[in-house]
Amino acid sequence: MSSMWGNLLTISIFGESHGPTIGVVIDGLPSGHHLDLDDIRAFMKRRAPGRTAWSTPRVEADEPQIVSGLFEGYTTGTPLTALIQNTDTRSGDYSELQIKPRPGHADLTGMVRYDGFNDPRGSGHFSGRLTAPLTFAGAVCRQILKQHKIQIVSHIKEIAGISDLPMDTVNPDVAAYAALADKPLPVISDTASEAMQAAVLDAKTNLDSVGGIIETMIVGVPAGIGNPIFDGIESRLGSLLFAIPAVKGVEFGDGFAVTKRKGSTNNDSPVFSSAGIRLMTNHGGGVDGGISNGMPISFRVGFKPTASIGREQQTINLKTKTAETLVIHGRHDPCIATRAVPVVEAVAAIATLDLLLEAEGRRPLAQRGQSN
Amino acid sequence: MSSMWGNLLTISIFGESHGPTIGVVIDGLPSGHHLDLDDIRAFMKRRAPGRTAWSTPRVEADEPQIVSGLFEGYTTGTPLTALIQNTDTRSGDYSELQIKPRPGHADLTGMVRYDGFNDPRGSGHFSGRLTAPLTFAGAVCRQILKQHKIQIVSHIKEIAGISDLPMDTVNPDVAAYAALADKPLPVISDTASEAMQAAVLDAKTNLDSVGGIIETMIVGVPAGIGNPIFDGIESRLGSLLFAIPAVKGVEFGDGFAVTKRKGSTNNDSPVFSSAGIRLMTNHGGGVDGGISNGMPISFRVGFKPTASIGREQQTINLKTKTAETLVIHGRHDPCIATRAVPVVEAVAAIATLDLLLEAEGRRPLAQRGQSN
Amino acid sequence: MSSMWGNLLTISIFGESHGPTIGVVIDGLPSGHHLDLDDIRAFMKRRAPGRTAWSTPRVEADEPQIVSGLFEGYTTGTPLTALIQNTDTRSGDYSELQIKPRPGHADLTGMVRYDGFNDPRGSGHFSGRLTAPLTFAGAVCRQILKQHKIQIVSHIKEIAGISDLPMDTVNPDVAAYAALADKPLPVISDTASEAMQAAVLDAKTNLDSVGGIIETMIVGVPAGIGNPIFDGIESRLGSLLFAIPAVKGVEFGDGFAVTKRKGSTNNDSPVFSSAGIRLMTNHGGGVDGGISNGMPISFRVGFKPTASIGREQQTINLKTKTAETLVIHGRHDPCIATRAVPVVEAVAAIATLDLLLEAEGRRPLAQRGQSN
Amino acid sequence: MSSMWGNLLTISIFGESHGPTIGVVIDGLPSGHHLDLDDIRAFMKRRAPGRTAWSTPRVEADEPQIVSGLFEGYTTGTPLTALIQNTDTRSGDYSELQIKPRPGHADLTGMVRYDGFNDPRGSGHFSGRLTAPLTFAGAVCRQILKQHKIQIVSHIKEIAGISDLPMDTVNPDVAAYAALADKPLPVISDTASEAMQAAVLDAKTNLDSVGGIIETMIVGVPAGIGNPIFDGIESRLGSLLFAIPAVKGVEFGDGFAVTKRKGSTNNDSPVFSSAGIRLMTNHGGGVDGGISNGMPISFRVGFKPTASIGREQQTINLKTKTAETLVIHGRHDPCIATRAVPVVEAVAAIATLDLLLEAEGRRPLAQRGQSN
Repeated sequence: MSSMWGNLLTISIFGESHGPTIGVVIDGLPSGHHLDLDDIRAFMKRRAPGRTAWSTPRVEADEPQIVSGLFEGYTTGTPLTALIQNTDTRSGDYSELQIKPRPGHADLTGMVRYDGFNDPRGSGHFSGRLTAPLTFAGAVCRQILKQHKIQIVSHIKEIAGISDLPMDTVNPDVAAYAALADKPLPVISDTASEAMQAAVLDAKTNLDSVGGIIETMIVGVPAGIGNPIFDGIESRLGSLLFAIPAVKGVEFGDGFAVTKRKGSTNNDSPVFSSAGIRLMTNHGGGVDGGISNGMPISFRVGFKPTASIGREQQTINLKTKTAETLVIHGRHDPCIATRAVPVVEAVAAIATLDLLLEAEGRRPLAQRGQSN
Repeated sequence: MSSMWGNLLTISIFGESHGPTIGVVIDGLPSGHHLDLDDIRAFMKRRAPGRTAWSTPRVEADEPQIVSGLFEGYTTGTPLTALIQNTDTRSGDYSELQIKPRPGHADLTGMVRYDGFNDPRGSGHFSGRLTAPLTFAGAVCRQILKQHKIQIVSHIKEIAGISDLPMDTVNPDVAAYAALADKPLPVISDTASEAMQAAVLDAKTNLDSVGGIIETMIVGVPAGIGNPIFDGIESRLGSLLFAIPAVKGVEFGDGFAVTKRKGSTNNDSPVFSSAGIRLMTNHGGGVDGGISNGMPISFRVGFKPTASIGREQQTINLKTKTAETLVIHGRHDPCIATRAVPVVEAVAAIATLDLLLEAEGRRPLAQRGQSN
Repeated sequence: MSSMWGNLLTISIFGESHGPTIGVVIDGLPSGHHLDLDDIRAFMKRRAPGRTAWSTPRVEADEPQIVSGLFEGYTTGTPLTALIQNTDTRSGDYSELQIKPRPGHADLTGMVRYDGFNDPRGSGHFSGRLTAPLTFAGAVCRQILKQHKIQIVSHIKEIAGISDLPMDTVNPDVAAYAALADKPLPVISDTASEAMQAAVLDAKTNLDSVGGIIETMIVGVPAGIGNPIFDGIESRLGSLLFAIPAVKGVEFGDGFAVTKRKGSTNNDSPVFSSAGIRLMTNHGGGVDGGISNGMPISFRVGFKPTASIGREQQTINLKTKTAETLVIHGRHDPCIATRAVPVVEAVAAIATLDLLLEAEGRRPLAQRGQSN
Repeated sequence: MSSMWGNLLTISIFGESHGPTIGVVIDGLPSGHHLDLDDIRAFMKRRAPGRTAWSTPRVEADEPQIVSGLFEGYTTGTPLTALIQNTDTRSGDYSELQIKPRPGHADLTGMVRYDGFNDPRGSGHFSGRLTAPLTFAGAVCRQILKQHKIQIVSHIKEIAGISDLPMDTVNPDVAAYAALADKPLPVISDTASEAMQAAVLDAKTNLDSVGGIIETMIVGVPAGIGNPIFDGIESRLGSLLFAIPAVKGVEFGDGFAVTKRKGSTNNDSPVFSSAGIRLMTNHGGGVDGGISNGMPISFRVGFKPTASIGREQQTINLKTKTAETLVIHGRHDPCIATRAVPVVEAVAAIATLDLLLEAEGRRPLAQRGQSN
């Protein structure tokens, strides 16, 4: 199941960058959830291209058309399908792409995997554009999680080596973190944000690109969600996070930093609080043995610099079987991490809702006619 | 599916640390593979406790008893099951564990998840002991992969902040890396190895523990294996690697380091070589768009310091609902990373064989009576 | 996974009877297959309403719009998606349906399952209309199977107790059986066909409906496809056949008739023939131990009489909590079995291709530019 | 996944007829269920060989040894594993089996599927003996269902064409049906039972075998369990029932009989009763649109006559490539249906519990220390 995922909540992503329509089918949603379409649009807009000075000038409305699974504004519980039209496609001559594979892209691997039959235009099914339907699915799950008092917040922790202030993963100010989404970049420190923006613009000017790290927290997950061995929270989230294009690393809690620590400073000790049992620290990122411990589930995702750059690069010519240089024209973001924040939140929402359904069953949240 | 995993190749892990028997069922193996049991034993021995000055004194023979799926020395293709007896269990009084949860363990989360009914003795199903059957499954898959000219090699890249020399992920000396398994620690630099060992012993002396990083390469995977979107190599491997107890981070290729790079220095350019198309560098770790590109698949796994330490720690008393201190007696490793190398290789082998079967079908490797 | 199915080949069905669009995503198709769209249309037409004197007057073009997974006429190997617009929907006032559940329908069960939030118009997601995208998926798989010399043929074995001549499941005349699709009813005996048609028209006249049995053969499946225990051919096919609305029974080979036989007359003995090993008889329907034996895989599927009938029926009023009578107006077929033949063939094709991919891997059938 | 099955509740069956150990891993069980081992033994005894005058003289204690997932008598929620030792194996010379395939068995198909490497002794993994661990798994699920007031009852509806009295599927006397298990044959009519027994003994005397039909009801399933399209109750149950060796047909409710009916007589009308909404009749077998309607879920399973018979049969010699005759010596039942009743109930219990967990989540049934 390459482009389908899930257990009780399953999603099926389809489409190509330059095809007429991309979309997603979400099966297993609880029925009776009143979808707030404005909220979905707002969430998807955070991913959409064309918002910043540097982002790709490709303009897509990314207006999801819901063709099934929603009746009179409420989820039916049967598959919910959203179609998104590709409007601003300029395929032009893509034959060069099939001859001169772009470094850092799936051009070569896609060609081998599909024996030359995959759609090469704009990376086809491998395009970052496929994260639009993924973000839609996450926007839906996120709304349902909110009714369970579960919220997902993020910031850009690092771009081009420039770090934001750290998030508090023990007593997070969730509202403040949620408000970061309204800033030009979701960064806590305005100084850091300006430096990051300068670095991105500088890369753009130099026909180059930069990488970055996104840090996310899932706040409000009750203790006891998840499973040991193969189906722990980290396994499920990890599997989905590595499905986001350009992700090369995933770490939970303090992640790789804990490898340099002693057990005596890394262990999170439990303590009784007015809110029940809590941990005094949260180095583990809210998960022990694959199962939530009630603390915020925190993780970081590392994105490589955008592979598409305007500089001349070394590649091969598959026709002439010789070395060749390549200059990629066309539209691309100099820093994919700046647009990937809602994508990371989306897959976090999808994985969390799937785990929650497994624990709680599919009891509906609302009754028809009640506001929710 | 918590303790079952896989698609065409499926494994089912069962047992508890202090139960009579742990084991694994492997379904979907190709038939006709002649199992080399000595090789399996040798591989499992790399994980077994009691090999070094510092490792837990719990002694387990870890002799797998194969009760199905093997006939006259060859895999039948039907489920292969290995049972491993737990012999050296000293449960003693575990009631304290149910009252005073150990920091950094799944004591609390397991209790909530299973409403107090999970086996608490020696961490029960959450125990690192469950990696023994996992290692067995990996040992079997590894043998089959070898016949496909696919090899998996590793070293301990870091312990307690002390780094080994880097691996060459472009033109690896696979035989030399494979030979690291015979050293006291699988470390390239003897100087680094000695410093690591000293750090581990020092932690042990101080009733403390240290973390570490394992680096692994899967060499020989042909280009074109894997899938886009949800079922890429990184997703599958990531999902399995996070299933190993104590793993807090996973990164592919240069991992988080690429987030600080420019695209112009990070992109791996293709080149024609005598061995066909190769990449000049391997920052991406052998995977583009979820699919193998023919270069070694390289990744790093970060292990936290062992949670069980001899020092007094802060915890709670679930009975009296008060704060309390805890001193963990019993047997534990001061550095789990030193024993986890074959476990990491095992899950790499399992994931790789599953992906290979998907691409190649289940054509057998051998005919009865032929040596292989 | 309610509306998704499969292992290597996965399909995801979505939509409601009166929603704007229904459709299907097919993931895992081999790349490089040149789709014959006319053949697909012709196959789907066999299911489409409005072809016979008695069938529902609802007219739907059922023209599938392929929006992904097809590039320059060839399957790409990434998800192939077909959308079908619902054009002839007359929802009118469906509020009665939510108050007076129709006997024999999923009105009540759907209401309970989805807490009253499912789309009730025209049975919503439970509608037989959802077999249109299923038939599309089968049409695609059928084409690919044909290149592997696997063909699927059927006849209506029985309607209203009137039997067709039996099929030869040992040495079938596949071309002749395939040609049945061009007849008004796919029935071998014209006399039986006329009697069946009369019975259907009679039921229609009497505002009633009749049931029937479809018999299908999958010819050309090589021996050795399938699996023991839970994943045998009968289990996979059975699971999919029971997913077709109105199916109440499935039997393989001689089915329930064998329960009255002796082993000495029921066992199929092998024999050497010019075509290799064959069985002298085919009471078992081509499957032993879940695995194909090389004989035609034959099975029969029993359809209940259409639940929607024009006669007054007894039901309840969910609002007043009293008994009530119901007269169903609207469009419906007096015999669903007459249109279900391609649906049965479709699911047979889907299951067979999935099993074949598992055995053979995903090697492509063709190279770009070659005709196939 | 050939020998693994399930969604939230997953089972993994392993072993061969003449291997040392067969068994089952059950993952996803709710924690906190106090297992009644005597009840499990009693249930398994109904399947065990050697109970009747005609059944195979192979004597197996079939004592399940639970090695994981049970702690202090309660299910832990982690994988529960039962091992069953094969004691009475007399493999002797099985080389003939590999040369002369037995008609009606998986000898040939297994050989082709596994390229000659499958264990041929006593049918290996294809043996009916593998239904012992399946029955164990069902026995566990059945106990948990009973606490949800769900009971599964059966009778032998037909052997050798001799019919038992019909079951009442509208207002069943569950206690009376449950008591049938204590009779020599679970048959309502003693006259029918005697005739059936005579027919079986007659077949045995004549070195032949007879088939039969088992009818089962799952009583107490609340309305609203199950799913539309691919994951309905009939699909799940059908998939598991066809996994039982020798099953050739499955029908729900009145099954194939409804194909001869009119809609006006077949539709089940709802009615208000003191027990809530019920149906006046139950021709549909308790399922509409894949979802339970609250009526007993009823189905019938057709078993072919045992393939192993003492008479001389026609077969081939794979070595000499010539026709040959075969006389099967060894132990076998002249009527498999008489022992299959608990197996059918077992798979019904497994499927029902899986569906129930999906709907209800994994909330435990009991608290430690409470009797249940």
